[in-house]
Amino acid sequence: MSETPEKQFTLSQLAAMVDGEVVGDGNTIITGISTLQAAQKGDISFLANPAYEKYLKDTLASVVILSSNSVDKAPCNALVVNNPYLAYATLSHCFAYSLTEPQGVHQSAVVDPLAIVDASAVVAANAVIEKGAVIGANVIVGAGCFIGENTEIGEDTRLYANVSVYHGVSIGKQCIIHSGVVIGADGFGIAPGPTGWNKIAQIGGVVIGDNVEVGANTTIDRGALDNTIIENGVKLDNQIQIAHNVIVGENTAIAACAGIAGSTRVGKGCVIGGGCGLAGHLTIADNVHLTGMTLVTKSIKKAGVYSSGTAVEPNDKWRRNVVRFRQLDELANRVKKLEKDNG
Amino acid sequence: MSETPEKQFTLSQLAAMVDGEVVGDGNTIITGISTLQAAQKGDISFLANPAYEKYLKDTLASVVILSSNSVDKAPCNALVVNNPYLAYATLSHCFAYSLTEPQGVHQSAVVDPLAIVDASAVVAANAVIEKGAVIGANVIVGAGCFIGENTEIGEDTRLYANVSVYHGVSIGKQCIIHSGVVIGADGFGIAPGPTGWNKIAQIGGVVIGDNVEVGANTTIDRGALDNTIIENGVKLDNQIQIAHNVIVGENTAIAACAGIAGSTRVGKGCVIGGGCGLAGHLTIADNVHLTGMTLVTKSIKKAGVYSSGTAVEPNDKWRRNVVRFRQLDELANRVKKLEKDNG
Amino acid sequence: MSETPEKQFTLSQLAAMVDGEVVGDGNTIITGISTLQAAQKGDISFLANPAYEKYLKDTLASVVILSSNSVDKAPCNALVVNNPYLAYATLSHCFAYSLTEPQGVHQSAVVDPLAIVDASAVVAANAVIEKGAVIGANVIVGAGCFIGENTEIGEDTRLYANVSVYHGVSIGKQCIIHSGVVIGADGFGIAPGPTGWNKIAQIGGVVIGDNVEVGANTTIDRGALDNTIIENGVKLDNQIQIAHNVIVGENTAIAACAGIAGSTRVGKGCVIGGGCGLAGHLTIADNVHLTGMTLVTKSIKKAGVYSSGTAVEPNDKWRRNVVRFRQLDELANRVKKLEKDNG
Repeated sequence: MSETPEKQFTLSQLAAMVDGEVVGDGNTIITGISTLQAAQKGDISFLANPAYEKYLKDTLASVVILSSNSVDKAPCNALVVNNPYLAYATLSHCFAYSLTEPQGVHQSAVVDPLAIVDASAVVAANAVIEKGAVIGANVIVGAGCFIGENTEIGEDTRLYANVSVYHGVSIGKQCIIHSGVVIGADGFGIAPGPTGWNKIAQIGGVVIGDNVEVGANTTIDRGALDNTIIENGVKLDNQIQIAHNVIVGENTAIAACAGIAGSTRVGKGCVIGGGCGLAGHLTIADNVHLTGMTLVTKSIKKAGVYSSGTAVEPNDKWRRNVVRFRQLDELANRVKKLEKDNG
Repeated sequence: MSETPEKQFTLSQLAAMVDGEVVGDGNTIITGISTLQAAQKGDISFLANPAYEKYLKDTLASVVILSSNSVDKAPCNALVVNNPYLAYATLSHCFAYSLTEPQGVHQSAVVDPLAIVDASAVVAANAVIEKGAVIGANVIVGAGCFIGENTEIGEDTRLYANVSVYHGVSIGKQCIIHSGVVIGADGFGIAPGPTGWNKIAQIGGVVIGDNVEVGANTTIDRGALDNTIIENGVKLDNQIQIAHNVIVGENTAIAACAGIAGSTRVGKGCVIGGGCGLAGHLTIADNVHLTGMTLVTKSIKKAGVYSSGTAVEPNDKWRRNVVRFRQLDELANRVKKLEKDNG
Repeated sequence: MSETPEKQFTLSQLAAMVDGEVVGDGNTIITGISTLQAAQKGDISFLANPAYEKYLKDTLASVVILSSNSVDKAPCNALVVNNPYLAYATLSHCFAYSLTEPQGVHQSAVVDPLAIVDASAVVAANAVIEKGAVIGANVIVGAGCFIGENTEIGEDTRLYANVSVYHGVSIGKQCIIHSGVVIGADGFGIAPGPTGWNKIAQIGGVVIGDNVEVGANTTIDRGALDNTIIENGVKLDNQIQIAHNVIVGENTAIAACAGIAGSTRVGKGCVIGGGCGLAGHLTIADNVHLTGMTLVTKSIKKAGVYSSGTAVEPNDKWRRNVVRFRQLDELANRVKKLEKDNG
């Protein structure tokens, strides 16, 4: 990453961005951001998780973002804020990689004459945009992307390279869609008939709100009849599967490799751990938190933390316990009998 | 989706397509298809699942597809059939989105002079077709697809945008392959040696039958020595992993995020739930149904429904049960001792 | 696969490549490699797993690779080696498909004038290479690949079609990257704030060592601050998710559909089964083996085999056991009470 041109800010400039208080020299020059352990002179770092406080005293950072109750322990300048992790999130963008953005429509891109591409939008090399698509202001369509017929992409949204968006999809403003994402492929709608499965045409679309991020290789299917809906502020990690007619509520965050089956409705503000599986036609309440790899086969009506599965064990011990799990109903009946005999 | 030109059929026309009986006015004009709840005047809807019968009396649909025993409850015209869900599947295609199909080979596509592309086939923008590939009649190769050397694609098959098919793969007729699918990548064949892993060349191919659908971002690896085989009528949802030398039997349907390890043979007519994992070198009988996220480590010899795992619980309760699971073998031994002491 | 031109070797030539001993006629002509069951005259086969010894006596192979203690049972020529599976791995490459490799930079590729592409490298049709990227000697960048700004790819590495590599990524020598892979997308870094989630800029890169293979549609995210690291000799199967700041140690092999959450460090020489899920911020010792679909929520400090989950059962039996699992803590307390009552 050494090629990125250097960024430079004074501590006072950074403090102003996060409404923080400088303890030390506001003229200190900051040129990078790093962890407490890896920080060098010129870097700003942060202490958000108490488990990392042990690294504070030896950090080489020039400034540490922290809360008021840690300020005495800082061996350097401090930037005191109420929420250090949030301040770190804000300031991280000051030091982000500055890509050399392409301009306009690349000559190798194939844009249908009946597509509408805003004059400020970028369409990178070898992208393909079909008839009737509408590409908003400041949108960046990455190299090799495909945008299907009549699909609309709202202003300031960025699609990285090789994203595939089918026809009739709507993506909101300020979204980030990572490479390999597929939006609007057919839902898995099949009806058994006398000679095998019969395909059900998937006539619905996909509607994605504003400020949504979709991780690499995630798939969001179009609806069978109504739309699949991803509400504003939803954050999806990589390799997530969203089936047809799912609704994901506002500001819900879903970690990688989770899958949500057809017509399930996930509430607002939920946090779904990596690898979770949600069966179809369920309703998950707002503010539900599922820990990693939880299998959900029934609706969840109350906010709270939920889990399933068993935890890792040495294989020999696990094998014996798995055998016992298979006999669990019988074991419970034997205990019942013992209680009766004793009673 | 409002840009699709309107379709229009009389109820009698639709009835003829599914061999159904009209109860009401056969001249009713139908322009859309919808759920009972969302239907408007001009729509046809359907009642297949008894759980939805409660929505029948208030539907605004102009026609409802249903079976003879619900016909009395329809508040509108009825289309009476033996299998309403199958009739819905058939009629859904009357109202599907009509894409403006490209024609012929797009000027930006790169087709090797030694590839054979049928005159009726479509090769969309920026697709790449290698030497010796054979593209059949009416095939549609989507934008940005890659078709490797000597790969054959049968007539009427459609590949959506950005599909990657390696060399030496055979895909049958009337298949649908969704965006991001990768067919024919190397199987995971590695042999341990003194200095690390040694790659085993993957010399087999992939053979996919007719009427197969492959969901977005699914991967089907080529065989190590023999072929990986997907038989006729198989339906694969999104993000499924099919390892080298797997055989998936005719008309088996697999839901999203399932994975099948090397050389496992899945029977015909199976239904495999989302997120299931099948170990390698197993044989799964015909007509086996696995519920979601089941882990299969042994062959299954009889048709039937199989499951594994545990169900979702509030996290605090789950934590206690997980601890007990780790002690399960010991608990069973303690019950045995109690029985002995009592007996 | 019938179009591949025939390869031809004498048994003696093959024996020399694996330092093996010929028992039989070293002039035997070998033109293919196959399993014991499928082999025909002219094929070489191998016996590595004792379970397959039953197929040895009826094989039609012209030569079988085997160890000295099976040599008496071979019905044909034998190639005796210490490690038959490793010898098979080596010789498999003699019979691999010979692709017609493209030469140089295809005219449809879009290469930034400030990218450095070695004269011996291949850039296939419709690939896109950004400013500052460095493509080493003999590298093959497949059709439709995207290589971001300042990314470096070491000599002899091959990217198959439609791979997406973001900016600031480093890939070593002799690597194989399969179609649909995404390297360097943003890690899932979000901080909760008063109005929803706030994105954390992902400033780190991805560093991939030498001799690494990455399976189709696998995703490897860039680091939040430091790099995500895949060490030399790592083998990743398809559809694996590697989150930001993960470190995967040398020669570790990971099977398909596994996911590793942020900042977890996996040791050297580990074998991680398909569908495993590793929580974030863990440390996994060297030489740990996880069986398929294991969930790991705590660090593992010792080499060994580990597992979690339960095994497949008929659904009716499973349902009863799952109910009992939910009552397991209570059951254990009842057993404790019985023991106390029994004195």
